[in-house]
Amino acid sequence: MQFHHHGYVTADPRVQPAAGVGVDRPMELPDEVDVLIVGSGPAGVIAAAQLAQFPGITTRLVERRPGRLEMGQADGIQARSTETFQAFGFAERITAEAYRITEMAFWKPDPDDPHRIARAARPPDDAHGMSEFPHLIVNQARVLDYFLEAAHHGPARIQPDYGYEFVELQVSDEGDHPVAVRLRHTTGPLEGQDRTVHARYVVGCDGAHSDVRRAIGCTPVGDKANHAWGVMDILAVTDFPDVRTKCAIQSHDGGSILLIPREGGYLVRWYVDLGVVPVDDGGKTRATPLDEVIARANAIIHPYTLDVRAVPWHSVYEVGHRVTDRFDDVPVELAGTRTPRVFIAGDACHTHSAKAGQGMNVSMQDGWNIAWKLGHVLTGRAPESLLATYSAERQVVAQRLIDFDREWARLMAARPEDLPDPTYLEDFYVQTSEFMFGFLTEYGPSTIVAGTEHQSLATGFPVGKRFKSPAVERVADGNPVHLGHHHRADGRWRVYAFADAPTAGQPSALADWARWLETDPASPLLAHTSEDGDPDAVLDVKVIYQQDHLAMNNVADVPPVFLPRKGPFGLVDYEKVYATDPRDDVFEARGIDRGGVVVVVRPDQYVAAVLPLAATEELAAFFAGALLPARAPAASL
Amino acid sequence: MQFHHHGYVTADPRVQPAAGVGVDRPMELPDEVDVLIVGSGPAGVIAAAQLAQFPGITTRLVERRPGRLEMGQADGIQARSTETFQAFGFAERITAEAYRITEMAFWKPDPDDPHRIARAARPPDDAHGMSEFPHLIVNQARVLDYFLEAAHHGPARIQPDYGYEFVELQVSDEGDHPVAVRLRHTTGPLEGQDRTVHARYVVGCDGAHSDVRRAIGCTPVGDKANHAWGVMDILAVTDFPDVRTKCAIQSHDGGSILLIPREGGYLVRWYVDLGVVPVDDGGKTRATPLDEVIARANAIIHPYTLDVRAVPWHSVYEVGHRVTDRFDDVPVELAGTRTPRVFIAGDACHTHSAKAGQGMNVSMQDGWNIAWKLGHVLTGRAPESLLATYSAERQVVAQRLIDFDREWARLMAARPEDLPDPTYLEDFYVQTSEFMFGFLTEYGPSTIVAGTEHQSLATGFPVGKRFKSPAVERVADGNPVHLGHHHRADGRWRVYAFADAPTAGQPSALADWARWLETDPASPLLAHTSEDGDPDAVLDVKVIYQQDHLAMNNVADVPPVFLPRKGPFGLVDYEKVYATDPRDDVFEARGIDRGGVVVVVRPDQYVAAVLPLAATEELAAFFAGALLPARAPAASL
Repeated sequence: MQFHHHGYVTADPRVQPAAGVGVDRPMELPDEVDVLIVGSGPAGVIAAAQLAQFPGITTRLVERRPGRLEMGQADGIQARSTETFQAFGFAERITAEAYRITEMAFWKPDPDDPHRIARAARPPDDAHGMSEFPHLIVNQARVLDYFLEAAHHGPARIQPDYGYEFVELQVSDEGDHPVAVRLRHTTGPLEGQDRTVHARYVVGCDGAHSDVRRAIGCTPVGDKANHAWGVMDILAVTDFPDVRTKCAIQSHDGGSILLIPREGGYLVRWYVDLGVVPVDDGGKTRATPLDEVIARANAIIHPYTLDVRAVPWHSVYEVGHRVTDRFDDVPVELAGTRTPRVFIAGDACHTHSAKAGQGMNVSMQDGWNIAWKLGHVLTGRAPESLLATYSAERQVVAQRLIDFDREWARLMAARPEDLPDPTYLEDFYVQTSEFMFGFLTEYGPSTIVAGTEHQSLATGFPVGKRFKSPAVERVADGNPVHLGHHHRADGRWRVYAFADAPTAGQPSALADWARWLETDPASPLLAHTSEDGDPDAVLDVKVIYQQDHLAMNNVADVPPVFLPRKGPFGLVDYEKVYATDPRDDVFEARGIDRGGVVVVVRPDQYVAAVLPLAATEELAAFFAGALLPARAPAASL
Repeated sequence: MQFHHHGYVTADPRVQPAAGVGVDRPMELPDEVDVLIVGSGPAGVIAAAQLAQFPGITTRLVERRPGRLEMGQADGIQARSTETFQAFGFAERITAEAYRITEMAFWKPDPDDPHRIARAARPPDDAHGMSEFPHLIVNQARVLDYFLEAAHHGPARIQPDYGYEFVELQVSDEGDHPVAVRLRHTTGPLEGQDRTVHARYVVGCDGAHSDVRRAIGCTPVGDKANHAWGVMDILAVTDFPDVRTKCAIQSHDGGSILLIPREGGYLVRWYVDLGVVPVDDGGKTRATPLDEVIARANAIIHPYTLDVRAVPWHSVYEVGHRVTDRFDDVPVELAGTRTPRVFIAGDACHTHSAKAGQGMNVSMQDGWNIAWKLGHVLTGRAPESLLATYSAERQVVAQRLIDFDREWARLMAARPEDLPDPTYLEDFYVQTSEFMFGFLTEYGPSTIVAGTEHQSLATGFPVGKRFKSPAVERVADGNPVHLGHHHRADGRWRVYAFADAPTAGQPSALADWARWLETDPASPLLAHTSEDGDPDAVLDVKVIYQQDHLAMNNVADVPPVFLPRKGPFGLVDYEKVYATDPRDDVFEARGIDRGGVVVVVRPDQYVAAVLPLAATEELAAFFAGALLPARAPAASL
């Protein structure tokens, strides 16, 4: 956390100074806004938190409810999401209050007595060390709390406008605020009355029954029949041994349970299989009473028993696998020909089972993806064409999610004897854990993802996938740190220069590259950075040397581009210069060429390019596609 | 973090439900209180945070200032303090915003050119792995913020009463509230007016010029002459390479600097030596202007230079080494004959240099020590005689601190050639790091610290020293956890039963011990626990098996005393049962006898006893001395 460089900060440094529209933000929803987010679920709140870092933009978040969500249904937090929380500043806090999954137990019919269940396997949850962040379970309501806090503590001081329901929208071809959105008051003295807000852009995060989706003519496509599960959050006494471990339980008669321990040490979520719901069911399955769900759970876990003492929440959860073919208002056949004005994100785009704990996680990445792009376009940092990449990138992710989830839900509901072999389910779980953890997203080439021609120079940083943070040492203070944890969700691109062999102060390819970046007229740093801000306001450039920090005598020997002067006092930022941690050499661990490599990372932490130090033209060309020149005629924001 | 067992918690689980006096706590300072804390510095706020866990007790905290401290002077946080923050629930948050010390640099005259300084050594800060917690630098104001948050979020909902200055007190021999305290309004419409509050006990945390100390006739004893340092928190540009590393700098002419990088990445504290102040100085040294301090700093760091851009705070800091001979109102010759009613803590008891970064840390341990004891006595859990142990324990610690600090300050101010050998200073630093880190406190035998007859059974848990948390596995969910991190500052004693060789469910000495503890009429668990509370309300009993968790088939096999039923729903608490982490076997790491050992830990995390499993009589006798029988005639609280 870096602060004090604009003067002494006496209180919580997580509260950034208000700026721009955040200085005197009106409590009342204005008639004109830059971005209108509809719905304060996971996709909506992360979008608000990201846009709070762009205080030149008026962003408002409308929500039908009169206030804070008291209890949400989602609870699974992939490591990718915890990593995302770190970028938004609350990973350590939510981790402290969450349940942590470190292994999963598989229970099946006891081979000696199939009417009894027995533990068949207990594989570790992250056998491959995919992330330094934990896999958590915590109620969605708390995730929303933390993102809303980040939105409120950001310079734009965003808070939700509660009590507004989306009714309809119209996109016109004219004017600065071409989207007319009709909203209805859901509470207070104006309840039932409509009002219209004009927006430059609208992001519909209004859930599985999205009205924004309907308004832009998107139709979810997928299964007709739904699978039903009785789901309950309970406080209970049981002799089932693994009640505090995530479990998949399959019984002799095909009944199955997914058991998820919850935060706080006592609460447990049980998903009890109620089977496939025929299209002509007429609501019968949905009306399954709680007692029947509990009785079925008792039957499945025999010989163990479950004595339910309190049920804070329960439901019959019935859902198919559906995805829309586009995530914005531009028909597929017109994609790229005009700027999208309306986007949908989260459950509005994709609905599926809760079994793999994916929904909230994928929704958050949707929201982050569109939000930083809107931030860049609305501040004139990037061309409008950037916005078309949202649907292009996220629709593919959603389709993969649906395909995966359909298979996982099918396996979870299958009778053990119907699977190819006895360990099929747990093997599938372990093999697909990269997906489960949220790390299989891989964006294809575009203006913001380069080709993979130089991938061999840094095999551990696959282009298009999220930048997996390596351990390094900070030279100025010798602290062992995670390089990627310095990447906050501030809308900036990261440029990591992994040095060639010479150390700081000696002639090297790295030194030549740094000089080019700092001084050459073709440098993207000069092209895209405004002269009236900090030198790292757009591109955050860091260096990682092959030496350990004790071998580096003087941090001042590094090229000046890595020691930028910042803020009103022109202070040196010392958190750009890193050394190799000898206990976990990043060059070895990530297959980085010792001739030096440049790794470019997007504002949402995805690797955008891997280039040799000598490929300066390619680097400049890449950023010329992703960003506009600074001071070019831009939006008046 | 454990919650939900009294029903679903929707918001921040760090906010505990209000109880007792916290349910309808008056904003106005009442005329009668149980505990009156004077001063909201480090000692005062930790005492309030601890007493907030005793909602049967009316605790008020008066502070002369009209509101929150904006900027404090202390900033060094020993690992012991971070460990303490963990017990109060905010270690991960304050760590995220603090500067972390991982090594210290020693600069001395360059042997080749003594007019220039050169780096002589850069030893690691915690070479001995004394703690899993970091050594931090963060402003005192933030430490106070977090403790006050903990006080406010505890069941008693304690908040400071700002704007009251302590004037005088009288201790009478009669009545329930024998201490009459005269306070004066320092602000608002009643400014200058006095009022009297009657208290059962008073804790004076009112600093180096303590009026409470004066009121009870204590006199600080120590050096007459003071050593002066110019101290400044600055934002500056410098070419000194280690400006982001903690440094001791000694120059050719004997001038020295202690440099402490501060939180946020930019701010740095410089202590610049101004020499010993003669008794007849007449305030001359204290009037040293800032420019002179900066000039002196520049001279000392030659050939490097310091360009100061902003100075958020500076002072000339002049302090001797003084300690009072007692920490309560009972004259030393009468100690043990009557109950103390007034206590002093923190700087009120001990003043010394800031060089070793000890002050705030020792003060916090003072405050914690007296607060849990007051909580126990006022709730009838422990006899009044417990209160005499406060002065007995903490005065010795303070005396050691003064002795150590005098030596360290002397070395820091010495000319290099006056020290016995060239590496004397850094060697002293490394050798004394256990002290520096706050882990050398070792309480002698008393009613709350047993003898060391059985120390050989658990050499890694020295009786009288703080319980160093070992890595273990939680059996119910397989999570790797730190055993000691489950010890929150909730006023409870901990009893750790390290098992003999058999695993759960098999006959064993551990099983016999557990049965005795749960059912025997002589059991301290039965003797000291009220029947109307949770079974672990007074003694939190845990077990650690020699097996790893995968070798333990069923958590339900452990003796029932380790799976207590709690709360209104009678739910099982699964966080009492631990296994050995095969990556770091606690039995090996801490020298624990494989025949089984009981380790008793005080509410403030100090090891109170090490006993064999068979020594049930000794265990019962120990608690009979430390605690009163439950339901005995107690205070009416």
